[in-house]
Amino acid sequence: VKRQECEEKVLSHITPLREEREHIHSVADRIIGAVNTSGKAKGMIAGSVARDTWVRGDRDLDIFMLFDPSMSREALEEHGMGLARSIARRLSGAVVEKYAEHPYVNTEIEGLSVDLVPCYAVDNAARIQSAVDRTPFHTLFVREHIGDLASDVLLLKQFAKAGGIYGSDQMTGGFAGYLCELLVIWYGGFSQVIEAASSWRPGVVIDIRGHQSKEFEDPLVVVDPVDPRRNVAASLTLTRFAEFVEFAHGYREAPSMDFFFPPVQGVLDFECFKAALGERGTYLYAIVFSTPHTIPDIVVPQLRKSLAAIAGMLDRYGFTVSRSDCCMGEARCMLLFELLVDSLPALKRHMGPYIWNGSNADDFRDKYRNGTFSGPYIEDGRYWIDIQRKHTSAGELLGSDSPLKVSLGKHVMASMQRGFTLLSGPGCWTEGFESFVSGFIRKQSPLVRIKQKREEIG
Amino acid sequence: VKRQECEEKVLSHITPLREEREHIHSVADRIIGAVNTSGKAKGMIAGSVARDTWVRGDRDLDIFMLFDPSMSREALEEHGMGLARSIARRLSGAVVEKYAEHPYVNTEIEGLSVDLVPCYAVDNAARIQSAVDRTPFHTLFVREHIGDLASDVLLLKQFAKAGGIYGSDQMTGGFAGYLCELLVIWYGGFSQVIEAASSWRPGVVIDIRGHQSKEFEDPLVVVDPVDPRRNVAASLTLTRFAEFVEFAHGYREAPSMDFFFPPVQGVLDFECFKAALGERGTYLYAIVFSTPHTIPDIVVPQLRKSLAAIAGMLDRYGFTVSRSDCCMGEARCMLLFELLVDSLPALKRHMGPYIWNGSNADDFRDKYRNGTFSGPYIEDGRYWIDIQRKHTSAGELLGSDSPLKVSLGKHVMASMQRGFTLLSGPGCWTEGFESFVSGFIRKQSPLVRIKQKREEIG
Repeated sequence: VKRQECEEKVLSHITPLREEREHIHSVADRIIGAVNTSGKAKGMIAGSVARDTWVRGDRDLDIFMLFDPSMSREALEEHGMGLARSIARRLSGAVVEKYAEHPYVNTEIEGLSVDLVPCYAVDNAARIQSAVDRTPFHTLFVREHIGDLASDVLLLKQFAKAGGIYGSDQMTGGFAGYLCELLVIWYGGFSQVIEAASSWRPGVVIDIRGHQSKEFEDPLVVVDPVDPRRNVAASLTLTRFAEFVEFAHGYREAPSMDFFFPPVQGVLDFECFKAALGERGTYLYAIVFSTPHTIPDIVVPQLRKSLAAIAGMLDRYGFTVSRSDCCMGEARCMLLFELLVDSLPALKRHMGPYIWNGSNADDFRDKYRNGTFSGPYIEDGRYWIDIQRKHTSAGELLGSDSPLKVSLGKHVMASMQRGFTLLSGPGCWTEGFESFVSGFIRKQSPLVRIKQKREEIG
Repeated sequence: VKRQECEEKVLSHITPLREEREHIHSVADRIIGAVNTSGKAKGMIAGSVARDTWVRGDRDLDIFMLFDPSMSREALEEHGMGLARSIARRLSGAVVEKYAEHPYVNTEIEGLSVDLVPCYAVDNAARIQSAVDRTPFHTLFVREHIGDLASDVLLLKQFAKAGGIYGSDQMTGGFAGYLCELLVIWYGGFSQVIEAASSWRPGVVIDIRGHQSKEFEDPLVVVDPVDPRRNVAASLTLTRFAEFVEFAHGYREAPSMDFFFPPVQGVLDFECFKAALGERGTYLYAIVFSTPHTIPDIVVPQLRKSLAAIAGMLDRYGFTVSRSDCCMGEARCMLLFELLVDSLPALKRHMGPYIWNGSNADDFRDKYRNGTFSGPYIEDGRYWIDIQRKHTSAGELLGSDSPLKVSLGKHVMASMQRGFTLLSGPGCWTEGFESFVSGFIRKQSPLVRIKQKREEIG
């Protein structure tokens, strides 16, 4: 009863209002009319509006323009973008060209953010030429199978948003809208998804059409009903998967509105941040540089790669990394490292070759015969020496050109080569990253945050 | 020519003098006479005196007393020790009972340290009942095969002593006298051993009789000519093996008297030790406790085990160990650790269970919901927390009862439980261990020591 009551209350907050629905459809109709009267393509609503699964206040409208599949890719891009631009100009005036796998136009019409996306009108999902052609088939599938479960999708989306696990972009690595729709269709409702997910463990496979034709290693596999070789949950990370399991389990145990409208974690001010850092006793360093000019889904994996490479370098040099994370802002990116060791002795133990390694052993011995703290000496068949360490401080290592020598992503490398700033300790609390660094040192799972907040209030 | 000249000069220093030889044999004859006239056993010289391979100034004389093999083990020990005691009392007055695998008597007669060892007079090495019965057969084999190579054995022993790799006791883990004899017999002389050894690598197998009947994993395998299932070099460590290879290689490249009479490495005085430690910048700790009352070959492996266990504990707690070593003195033992990290932040990252690990996950989350620096949070499917570290200083950890909770050897454990002293920094330079701690921070391979000394002089 508590759960039902709670969910009804949530729906009363998130179900789109009638005037909202009418407004969005009237805008959609006007755009589709413009596409159809051009005679060049057929207009179609896609996304959550088409499926009636958008959450109140969402302002995104996706209009697909379906062209004749006999057109070449170049012709499609040329005519498609031409049509999109002319419609956008006519209806709003503002035109922003964007690029995912293919170019499209974004514009604002009467308070809505409208994407105009050219694609091929293939008559069968097996004939799609690129990912963008697949979207209309997703819309058709959901429309056909969603029945009266649209509200359940709204609940699941809101639930995932509250857990911080909604969105299939690279930074989130969470649940896409389409994935939420398929889960609701498969399990038969929001409650059923919660029941199932609370005892998920990695290796869940859902194949609605029973047509899977490829193996996947991902923690959650939901075979795309319109493409037997595609996992709709491919971008879901193990961490987000586990957070969803935890959140579902927690909701099942003690349902409350918090699971849909979570307590907000405030940002620490500088003094609190400084004090918290002092208590931890750890050494915080941040590398900050300009955000590369390319789409986030390309930048984010490179940030992660760079983070791991620099953390690996710190560990190799003896500066033990406790935790690290990255953040992509509009203008600047931050790589953040929390260290347990900040300075090391002058002495470093260094491994040499095996004694029976001929001239290598001779060369090593002769090279280091003098100027060592100790050695060369022999242990387990090898030469070893205790020599002067190159970097005795983590800050000095990070401020040198060493970070530029590890395996950074291409765009991150280019940006860092143009220059980066090294911050340390409380200094990491810097403009644009206050929320990120606060969240870093107060990291909590979605469920723990709710439980703790409840205790503080209770 | 240089080599030959050098070796001749060495021999002129180490070959026993005629009067020494006569003296030792006259003492031996008197003891053997006493054994034989007792009518209970047959006397026999064993060891290097019997083989004519002892080095000038050695004072050790081994007399074996061979009893009828039909006697029980108890009767042998009773009668054997009775006879040994009575002979020792008659010829010297001093009787020290000792114990290796079996009991024997040590006494001093006319400046010689004499061992009186009861054993069985088996007529065939295949019938030996314990290790001590094997020794007479070693003596017979060497006498039969050594020919005119006794001087070569002297050179090899002196060479191994100079390299610090002579002695098959557990602390040294080096070359036994019998092993030196077999190597000279197999290769045909000292020079031939040097030539061969300078290109050895682990896995050398020497089987003089071609009768090996067991596989060994040791770096050097020399099958005992009197026992096909025994490796004479079993106690040789990989480190000593490698040091011998290096030393042989070095002598071959640039022969000199240093390889037989090495430069002595002086002991650092306290001020020098303190200064050297300051330059290294490392953190030195020593655990000192009473030497257990049992034979060294039992204590030493336990010291090594304890050293590894405590070093492992330090590493697990985050106090990175650069190097460690142990020393067994008459009265006290020392475990010595050189650390790169001496203090750590209050914060420690701690791993919890997987989220889908049912009640474990619930318990963990509830236990740590408060009082953490951060978390519980989820990473890669698990709970993690940042909590208060138990030991933030290495000295505090080593001074606690934690060292007594790791896998120490039995006798070391008992001694440390009765109490141990923790020393740190320059304080590790303490009575009885000055040479050990000096050697630790000036550790060098035998060859490097010689080369460096030569440069200092030249």
